[in-house]
Parts: sequence; structure tokens; C-alpha cells
Amino acid sequence: MKIIKDGITAPLGFKAAGIHCGIKSSKKDLALIFSEKPAITAGLFTTNQIKSAHVLLDLKRLRRKESQAIIVNSGNANACSGVKGRDNASGMSEYTAKCLDIDKQGVLVASTGIIGVPLPMNKIKKGIKDISSKLTVNGSRDAAGAILTTDTTIKEVAVDTGIKGRTKDNIKIGAIAKGSGMIAPNMATLLAFITTDACIEHEELFTSLRECVNATFNMLSIDGDMSPNDTVIIMANGTSRNKRIKFNTSEYKKFTDALNYVCTYLTKKIAADGEGATKLVEIQIKGARSIKDARRAAKAVANSNLVKTALNGCDPNWGRILSSLGAARIKIKPEKIDIAINSEPIVCNSISTDFSQKKLHKLLKEKEITITINLNVGDYTSTAYTCDMSEEYVKINAHYHT
Amino acid sequence: MKIIKDGITAPLGFKAAGIHCGIKSSKKDLALIFSEKPAITAGLFTTNQIKSAHVLLDLKRLRRKESQAIIVNSGNANACSGVKGRDNASGMSEYTAKCLDIDKQGVLVASTGIIGVPLPMNKIKKGIKDISSKLTVNGSRDAAGAILTTDTTIKEVAVDTGIKGRTKDNIKIGAIAKGSGMIAPNMATLLAFITTDACIEHEELFTSLRECVNATFNMLSIDGDMSPNDTVIIMANGTSRNKRIKFNTSEYKKFTDALNYVCTYLTKKIAADGEGATKLVEIQIKGARSIKDARRAAKAVANSNLVKTALNGCDPNWGRILSSLGAARIKIKPEKIDIAINSEPIVCNSISTDFSQKKLHKLLKEKEITITINLNVGDYTSTAYTCDMSEEYVKINAHYHT
Repeated sequence: MKIIKDGITAPLGFKAAGIHCGIKSSKKDLALIFSEKPAITAGLFTTNQIKSAHVLLDLKRLRRKESQAIIVNSGNANACSGVKGRDNASGMSEYTAKCLDIDKQGVLVASTGIIGVPLPMNKIKKGIKDISSKLTVNGSRDAAGAILTTDTTIKEVAVDTGIKGRTKDNIKIGAIAKGSGMIAPNMATLLAFITTDACIEHEELFTSLRECVNATFNMLSIDGDMSPNDTVIIMANGTSRNKRIKFNTSEYKKFTDALNYVCTYLTKKIAADGEGATKLVEIQIKGARSIKDARRAAKAVANSNLVKTALNGCDPNWGRILSSLGAARIKIKPEKIDIAINSEPIVCNSISTDFSQKKLHKLLKEKEITITINLNVGDYTSTAYTCDMSEEYVKINAHYHT
Repeated sequence: MKIIKDGITAPLGFKAAGIHCGIKSSKKDLALIFSEKPAITAGLFTTNQIKSAHVLLDLKRLRRKESQAIIVNSGNANACSGVKGRDNASGMSEYTAKCLDIDKQGVLVASTGIIGVPLPMNKIKKGIKDISSKLTVNGSRDAAGAILTTDTTIKEVAVDTGIKGRTKDNIKIGAIAKGSGMIAPNMATLLAFITTDACIEHEELFTSLRECVNATFNMLSIDGDMSPNDTVIIMANGTSRNKRIKFNTSEYKKFTDALNYVCTYLTKKIAADGEGATKLVEIQIKGARSIKDARRAAKAVANSNLVKTALNGCDPNWGRILSSLGAARIKIKPEKIDIAINSEPIVCNSISTDFSQKKLHKLLKEKEITITINLNVGDYTSTAYTCDMSEEYVKINAHYHT
């Protein structure tokens, strides 16, 4: 496997574009991803009971396990928008199909931005007409820019899986994502779109995606708030004409490893770009009684405002870490927990190691912090991804609406 | 029932004191509460698996269902402090018993402040000797001041229950509390000490306390972080010589109503004094399928960073409220939710009511905000107490340790 350029347009047979259509005042706000032929498609969506209009539409569309295009707007989430919102999501899908001259059942929709405000459909329709003529094989970066909201960086990645196709190229996987706030357990608040030219059936594609998402996007927490819009979609158009990827083969493993790399890369990018974040934080749990406990423990620490504000202040406040573990409803031995920060042991058997405060304070100024916690009650491990909590986080979220 | 003065020393037969013993640099940091005769005592403590040394000691002491004094220090939580911490908690209890010349089994201990640092036992012992000679029937306010940490206000209340004693006075209930950060579900991070001169057995006292705490302190959330130190203790010394209060009597109801008033009063005081808070926020849930659902729903909204930052920005961002309900793992009908802010309807059937943004923005500038949410799926109600989240919250918690 190796990292390559061109994001979602790296795999063969995909085009993309990103433009400004007027939902936002000046930044790009409309993206289109297109596969030259219908692609096997799998999606995972928010588990929030309040689902945005696009999630409800895509869930319906994906019963066919196939799609050819995804139209995405930023600046407006089309969530909590009632019947009108659902009509607007359908409208986006249908109008995109018309402009691309493809089956409307093959157009998925995604929206992100402010909740509860009707979509400006006139602007969006004009934008769809415009963007349909701008699709290119170099359009990934524009599309990646057009799906952002409070994000400060573009999130884009592509890999060569090392699996041979029947064309001269290996199979590739490309992806773009957005996410910065309202990021929480069970499908972090994000949009991620993944393309691949692999030939793979829906069952294998969906299983591989779910496996990767559980260990990456679902282990992401910026603020503990779960969005109604979370969406991860993968399209596999088979253009590489490889031998179909089946379960229990080295190709399936290679494919899933590559997909996992892509998801992990985007997950870290999103955590590092969390609203107001000054650093990327990985919470590594070891020695848990079960995988469920390991994930709960990692998320409990990642979700603690007190841990995250301490990290912002470069304060090795390990008591807050222990306390968040104690509240996590998992099996622990209260006096058997070890904690290290960037490999420096700070707690052994739940007691301070007499580490140097000065050294730790310096260590905590780094841009990437790994907190390793050994619960010492089993063999399971898990990693959660988060960031620190800064005054800037509050500033952003106190005034986002107005 | 009527509100009276003198906090925990309002009930007959109680004395208290609060002094500076040197744990903190200059503020009061040691409190003592004393009953002239052994009192029936009930306590509720943190459900965090990581329990501070004082919680472990008190749980043991309270098997006797009786106590005569509570010694409390602030500035140091004596949590995550291992065997040494447990020895220190016992030491505080035993030395207090010696100075007061009472049974050491009758002295409860409480600590609050920084986690993981050994207690300065020399200073504390000197303080205990000193404070034992300063107990007075006017000492409630000093004691209330000595248990604070990041709190900015004293929390103290007393009521006349209206239940007649055999002395000339009615039965009284008095209380002091502290709490400002690390305030979360299942025994908010707080210390609360309640005294009464009622004659009541342990079973009735404990049941009445649990009932009140479930609806008040346990519905409090400042930041979703549960402390290892949470403690509510009530001492009933029987000095009023009333007819013993039994279950299923009008006296039991009056007593519980008065106790509930005391707990609600302190809960609101703590929420309003949340770290960095600019306003008190009540989340009232109506129409829930069960009491469990009602409480979960209220807490889910109260725990949402995004709801709380929006309230800080005086932004009626109802989408965040709906989204937090959708993520709460309770029975809802996603399209049947009504929301009002200070009685002004803003959402009907999960859709915006076209309220005036300007009017709402003004309404949200008030010091007390009530968000009323009708889930319209049942008849159960609940109220959670919280505050907004400000940049100041982050500032306080990024730098509390150092």
C-alpha cells in the first residue's frame, strides 16, 4: 500500500467538482462526485433518532446497493426541516439526475451546516446545473473544499492498495471528509465520501466499511454531541476490472487494511481540526476485559470536558483521567490502572509515579498527544481520537448561529 | 413551611465552625459540623468506581447509621491517593473524635479540591484542634465558606418544616453545600451537609433523602464529569422531640417536601454558580414515556456542550436541543416534539414556530432560563439543572491544577 495524490478522483472512472452556489456568502458550498458507471455503494449513517432529510433519502436509495453520483451542500444541514426538507432532498437528487442524464435512484444527497433553516433551493438548483458541467478527474480538492463548515483544513487522501487490477493500475481508494464540531460517539458528525475502482460485491464492501468505521470514525469525539447528519458512503465502480474481492482472501485483507488506513487518516485529520483544537489527542486503552469495555473506556476519557480542558492547559491532571474511567460503566480495578503520556509513565497502580511536572508540562505542549491507559484486567485494546478543549471552542459554538 | 436563617445551625442541638488551616493559601479550608448528641445519619455517595478516601471511610462508618460530627476540608480531594490517603482520612476522623471527646466511629469525613496530592496532615491536625474549640450555634456561614473550591458563592439554606416538636419550636432542616465543576449525573460533584432536629428513624430518613436527591442533586450537570468525592449527608438528632416521623403520614410528606425544598434550593444555587456560568438553566421535560426516559432526556440536553455554548451566546439554536434528544436513547417521536424557552414556543411538532429571533435573543439574556420540552409520548416529567458554558469555563479548567 502506498499514499498517492488526487483524493476521490484517484480511482479510475471517478470525476468530481466543487463550486460556490450562494448558500454561504463566499466560500465553496456545493460538491458533486460522479462515477462514469453505476457503482456498488455502501453507507453508514447517524444513529441519532433525529435524522436529517438527506439521511432518510439515502437510506431509501441505498436499498438498491448501487449509486452513480453524490450531490453535497454545505452551509445548511437540511435537518429538522420536516416534509419540506424531505421534498428538498428529493429535489436535489432528481435535479442532479436530470442534469447528469442518469437514473434519479442513483443520486445520493448529503447536507451539512446549520439546522432548521430551509434550503435555498433556487440557488442550489442553479448550482447543480452549473456543477454538472464542471466534473473533472482533478476535481477532488475542489469537492473537498466545498463540503467544509467550521473546518479549517481540507481532508483528502488516496492510496494504492497494491491489489492488481486488469488495467495497468493497481486498485485505488480515495476519500474526502469534513468534520469539526458536533462530533461524537456512533458515527461522528461528519461526512466522508470514499471512492474505489475495485470490483467488489456489496456484502464484502459493506462489511469492510463497517469494520473500518467502528475502529475509526466511530471512535472520534470532539464534543460528545451526535449529529443528525453523519454520513459515510463508499462507491466501488469496478473500473479496475480486478478479480472480484471475496471474504477470507488476502485481497479482502489488503483492501480492508487500505480502507482502514484511509479512514484512520481522515479521523485523525478531523480530530486535529476539532473546533478550537490546538492538538490531536489519541486515547489508547490496553488491558480491557472486552472490546466493548475498551471502546467505552477510550470514549469516556475522550469525552471528558475536564480531561480536554486540562490538555488545553498542558496540565498532566491524571486524576481527571482516572475519574472519567471510574464513571465509564466498565470493569476496572480502581487501584490497578497505569497511565502514560507520550510514553512517559505518570500513574502506576492508580498512584502518581512522581513524574517531573516540568517535563510533563513541556511534553503536553506537543501537537500530538497519546495517552496510553492500561486497565490491567484483560487483553482488549482500543483507540479513541479527540482534541483538547479551548476557549475558542466555546467562542465558535456560542456564536455559530448568528 | 417557611424559609429561615442560620443554615445548618438552625435546627436545635447543632453547632458548626469554619476556619483557615493552611491547605489553601488564604481562604477558609476546614469546616466542622457537630451535633450535641449522636444523630441518625443517612448518606448518598458518588457512583464513580474511583472513590475518594473519605467516601470509602464514610461508607464504612455509616453502617452504624449514626454519627455526631463531620470534619470537612477543601483544597485537597484526598482522591486517587492510595493506602496513604485512606490512612489520612481515618486520621482526620480519629483526631477530630479525640479533640471533641466523642467516639471516633461517630466522625464522618469529607474532602474536596485537587486530586492525587497527599493531604498536608500536619496543618490539618493543627486545624482540627483549633476548630474544635470554635464550634458555635452561629457557625453555619463560616462552615459554608470553608467547604468551597472554585465556587463563587456560599450555598446555605434552612427551613421551618411546620411539623411540631415537643419543644416550643417546629422541626427545622438546615443545609450547606458546595459544587461548581466536575458536576455530573449520578450524584453531582458536590458536598452537601444537611441537619435536622427531627426525630426520625434511619429507614425513613434514608428513603426521604434518596427521593429528594434523585430529583435534585442527581439532576444537576455542569460539565458531565462525575467526581470521586460526591457526598450528601443528613444528620437527624431528634432534639425537637417530635413524635417519630413514620412512612405514610402527613408528617413524612411534610418532612420530605421541606427536605426537597432544601435540596432543590441548593441544586439551583450550584447550577447558577457552575464554573464560568452566566445563567441558571432548567430543562423541564414533559410527556415522556417513563420517569427514566424523562430524566435521561433532561440530562441529555443539560449535558450537551453545544446546547450550553448556544445558551452562552443567547442563541435559540433549537436544532441542537432536538439533536441531543435524538441521541439520548429514549423513546421519542422525531416529528412530535414541542419546545418553549421561558414559556415562548419556539418549536412545534419538531419544526420552528417562526418565532422572532430578536425577541428570543433578548429572552435568552435573562439570568434564569427554563427550556420546556414536551416529547408528547407519555405523561412523565422531570427537571434537570445546569448552566451555560462559557469561555471562562475552559479558562478555569485549563489552569486549575497549576
